[in-house]
Amino acid sequence: MTDRVPAGFCRDADGRLLVAGQAAEGWVEAAGDTPLFVYDRAILSARVAAFRAAMPAGLQLHYAVKANPLPALVAHMAALVDGLDVASAGELRLALSAGMAAGHISFAGPGKRDRDLEAAIGAGATINIESAGELERAGAIARRIGRRARVALRVNPPFSLKGSGMRMGGAASPFGVDAADAPQVLEAMAAQHFDFRGLHIFAGSQALSEAALLDAQRETVALAAELAGHAPGSIPLVNLGGGFGVPYFPGDTALDLSVLGTGLADILEARPRALQSTRFAIELGRWLVAEAGVYLCRIVDRKVSRAETFLVTDGGLHHQLAATGNFGTVIRRNYPLVNASRDGGGREIVSVVGCLCTPLDRLGDKVALAPAAIGDLIAVFMAGAYGRTASPQAFLGHPAPLEMLV
Amino acid sequence: MTDRVPAGFCRDADGRLLVAGQAAEGWVEAAGDTPLFVYDRAILSARVAAFRAAMPAGLQLHYAVKANPLPALVAHMAALVDGLDVASAGELRLALSAGMAAGHISFAGPGKRDRDLEAAIGAGATINIESAGELERAGAIARRIGRRARVALRVNPPFSLKGSGMRMGGAASPFGVDAADAPQVLEAMAAQHFDFRGLHIFAGSQALSEAALLDAQRETVALAAELAGHAPGSIPLVNLGGGFGVPYFPGDTALDLSVLGTGLADILEARPRALQSTRFAIELGRWLVAEAGVYLCRIVDRKVSRAETFLVTDGGLHHQLAATGNFGTVIRRNYPLVNASRDGGGREIVSVVGCLCTPLDRLGDKVALAPAAIGDLIAVFMAGAYGRTASPQAFLGHPAPLEMLV
Repeated sequence: MTDRVPAGFCRDADGRLLVAGQAAEGWVEAAGDTPLFVYDRAILSARVAAFRAAMPAGLQLHYAVKANPLPALVAHMAALVDGLDVASAGELRLALSAGMAAGHISFAGPGKRDRDLEAAIGAGATINIESAGELERAGAIARRIGRRARVALRVNPPFSLKGSGMRMGGAASPFGVDAADAPQVLEAMAAQHFDFRGLHIFAGSQALSEAALLDAQRETVALAAELAGHAPGSIPLVNLGGGFGVPYFPGDTALDLSVLGTGLADILEARPRALQSTRFAIELGRWLVAEAGVYLCRIVDRKVSRAETFLVTDGGLHHQLAATGNFGTVIRRNYPLVNASRDGGGREIVSVVGCLCTPLDRLGDKVALAPAAIGDLIAVFMAGAYGRTASPQAFLGHPAPLEMLV
Repeated sequence: MTDRVPAGFCRDADGRLLVAGQAAEGWVEAAGDTPLFVYDRAILSARVAAFRAAMPAGLQLHYAVKANPLPALVAHMAALVDGLDVASAGELRLALSAGMAAGHISFAGPGKRDRDLEAAIGAGATINIESAGELERAGAIARRIGRRARVALRVNPPFSLKGSGMRMGGAASPFGVDAADAPQVLEAMAAQHFDFRGLHIFAGSQALSEAALLDAQRETVALAAELAGHAPGSIPLVNLGGGFGVPYFPGDTALDLSVLGTGLADILEARPRALQSTRFAIELGRWLVAEAGVYLCRIVDRKVSRAETFLVTDGGLHHQLAATGNFGTVIRRNYPLVNASRDGGGREIVSVVGCLCTPLDRLGDKVALAPAAIGDLIAVFMAGAYGRTASPQAFLGHPAPLEMLV
């Protein structure tokens, strides 16, 4: 694999990587140390703008906080999107602190404890109900604290998002209520004093096929229409899920937003009468933030073992588990990475490893990079989503990585 | 897979799981919440005692802190073993705080930064040198701060531990110096003012074959003897590595320590003259602590999706990544787990999942458990090693797990 600097980043005349217009080394100086995650707020904003420009008017955009919960980044996103989706009481606090109104926060997750439900009801956030039992618990808590619970129903769809990195429909699942059981739970919502906010239907994630995404959206709208007759009144909002993938690997092609936007406009235009007054939202995490982030680590050692050259860095899987192929992947492939300190001298084949005492800790396996010296910075791209918080940060007792939104 | 309570644990007359003689629920009450890791210090002590009883007199036992760095547990182990092995400056501080003398601490890791080397040299810990370049840096730092650096050479052996869960020899590696290059680095050690402490040779980990372990130990002793002529004086200590596996899965058989002890006694007895005054150490992490720990989480929801029953807990892969099959494993298999609150009513097939919004978060896939109610505790065994710190704890913003050494 040869190195490539992805869109949004470039090199200066000396071959040094620029992030948000400044040399990577400059950001490290400003932060004070490596490893460092740098997130470019201009890329984040551009991403949201591109979505808005391509998608039908009135379509809501939600940010799934779990993709990157850095408080400054969540605050930046909160000002740009229409809602925040959270997966824990901790993320709920974060979303509220970011300035998002509780009415635009929805809380999903199969294992919400009573304290979590109480926090959401108390704050006025919408609870995506994952089971009949959870609805009962939410009702009891609401009565006890004298509040009306805002609820939406999460439905486990009978279809899945084809070609997605992670399928979330069409099979037995701990997430949501099977579509077949949904009418009953919707009727239970109607029978009690809930504030019904709509449906939440997820079919998968990390898909790079526009056709597959549109198929899933079409099926989702049809399913919502089928369920509408059972809902307590008209459906205010259908969260269509997201599933927009990003191109991690050579051969991956970025999604064509105009195809998605036109297709989704047609789907919504043709929606059944039962959904005429319904609003729709797309919930995105990875697609909004992954490409805005870069992970910078420094080469500590350079060594040759049995003719293989290793660049040993101060980074590793404790910050970038997915990039080492150890989280949710079957076949390990390299994330794009480059020597951020220089570009000249041709290319050499090296393996870039982290500082941990485990053979799993490999950021780049036999990649072609500009010949590197100890002290050079390595940049791993696609680091804006599922980085620090999706990694075993405490493993082996190394310091936490630094993070900057710039 | 049917459930089993592993050795060291049992149930009371009401079918409740006992941990260190007390009901699991009692430990949760004492800790104040779930999820909770409980580590049984009697099991830890018994493990060390069994090792001592079976192994040749004079063989040192080291504890690899990375397996479980809970400070109380490290302090408990420090009082029982002959040395602590650390993998970062953070673990070095922990080992010193646990009361281990610096002379009995060794520091391995391919990406030691100058500040890490300085911390080790300043404290008087032994640095396992991973490359010629690292030796040079250590020498320069020692001169600068006016200390003599204690160093051992980590050798990448030309053989590997057969059948090990993770091979660490016989191939190109970022760890240590290839055996072929070791003489040169040993001679560089002799040429400078280093305090030479010996060799550190790791061939793999998590092996369940006594024959394979003994083969690796035999080859390690032979390799050490070959290198002895290049060392700066006689070799004080050879760290033979560890690699002792533990039985995670049905069909796995625990190691027979007496076979290992007898075999290793023969190997050491027959060691070449060049190693007559050398002492030997076995470094163990997982084998010492894995079976002493249990992870307790509570069932928050019980639901059926497409005829599959799910028990949704408040635990998950953010605390127990390896148990969900997402860390260093190719084929997912269930760790032993039981309903810790009851044993009656026959068995039902259920899937036990965590509270995270990802299909990866599955602690038990179609396991046979005593029929469970919401509120019951689930116990996942083999949780003493590579649990909390080897998991993405911050993922989705849930609270940290609690830990108790009892």
